[in-house]
Amino acid sequence: MKKVEHIGIAVNSIETAGDIYTKLLNTGIYKVEEVASEHVKTAFLQTGPNKIELLEATHPDSAIAKFIAKKGEGIHHIAFEVEDIYAEMQRLRAEGFVLLNEEPKRGADNKLVCFVHPKGTNGVLVELCQSV
Amino acid sequence: MKKVEHIGIAVNSIETAGDIYTKLLNTGIYKVEEVASEHVKTAFLQTGPNKIELLEATHPDSAIAKFIAKKGEGIHHIAFEVEDIYAEMQRLRAEGFVLLNEEPKRGADNKLVCFVHPKGTNGVLVELCQSV
Repeated sequence: MKKVEHIGIAVNSIETAGDIYTKLLNTGIYKVEEVASEHVKTAFLQTGPNKIELLEATHPDSAIAKFIAKKGEGIHHIAFEVEDIYAEMQRLRAEGFVLLNEEPKRGADNKLVCFVHPKGTNGVLVELCQSV
Repeated sequence: MKKVEHIGIAVNSIETAGDIYTKLLNTGIYKVEEVASEHVKTAFLQTGPNKIELLEATHPDSAIAKFIAKKGEGIHHIAFEVEDIYAEMQRLRAEGFVLLNEEPKRGADNKLVCFVHPKGTNGVLVELCQSV
């Protein structure tokens, strides 16, 4: 793992939350992107080497909509940047972690991503991501 | 805000969680520290420019014990490194954020810290921290 690439925050509205995080981090949103396959709209802010990803559901079936319905707005996942996502997936499987994706899938921000089951990571939803 | 300094994760046992995060991040715990005033024991792992802080309650009155009783193990807070915590506190107050500390207090890892009320940050407990 090279660094915390981003922290994903589930919000009701990326417009409202975008204003708040712009003030909090003292920097603007540099990208808004819809990931249709995940039914989410995302907005990114940069803070040094790390990013904050605001996630708004675009459909009631989205994982983000379900997360907010259950837990309210808040931190949804931590994404770690990896050099070689295939090698990391193999390493983590060998260590006993349960991966939520058989193969890496295409995420926001030009990334290949894979999620690790939070039951094996003390309740934390962990994402691996590799730039493509 | 300069970067994500660390992400704090509330766990039942830093020994058990330490083994898991050592495998996950492929790096060992480099420091264990008790913060008696907060009734917590902390363990730190480094991943590039960022840290993961595992937090175990040492007393039932600890904020970490209450968090786990309510929500289970999981991400507790995000800490951003700041250059000048007094200036950042003033800036955030002027932007309308509610701070949980009147003055910076001494946290783990030789830091001056201040928390921002999660009601104003979409449910995210935000910590400001400055090295001393």
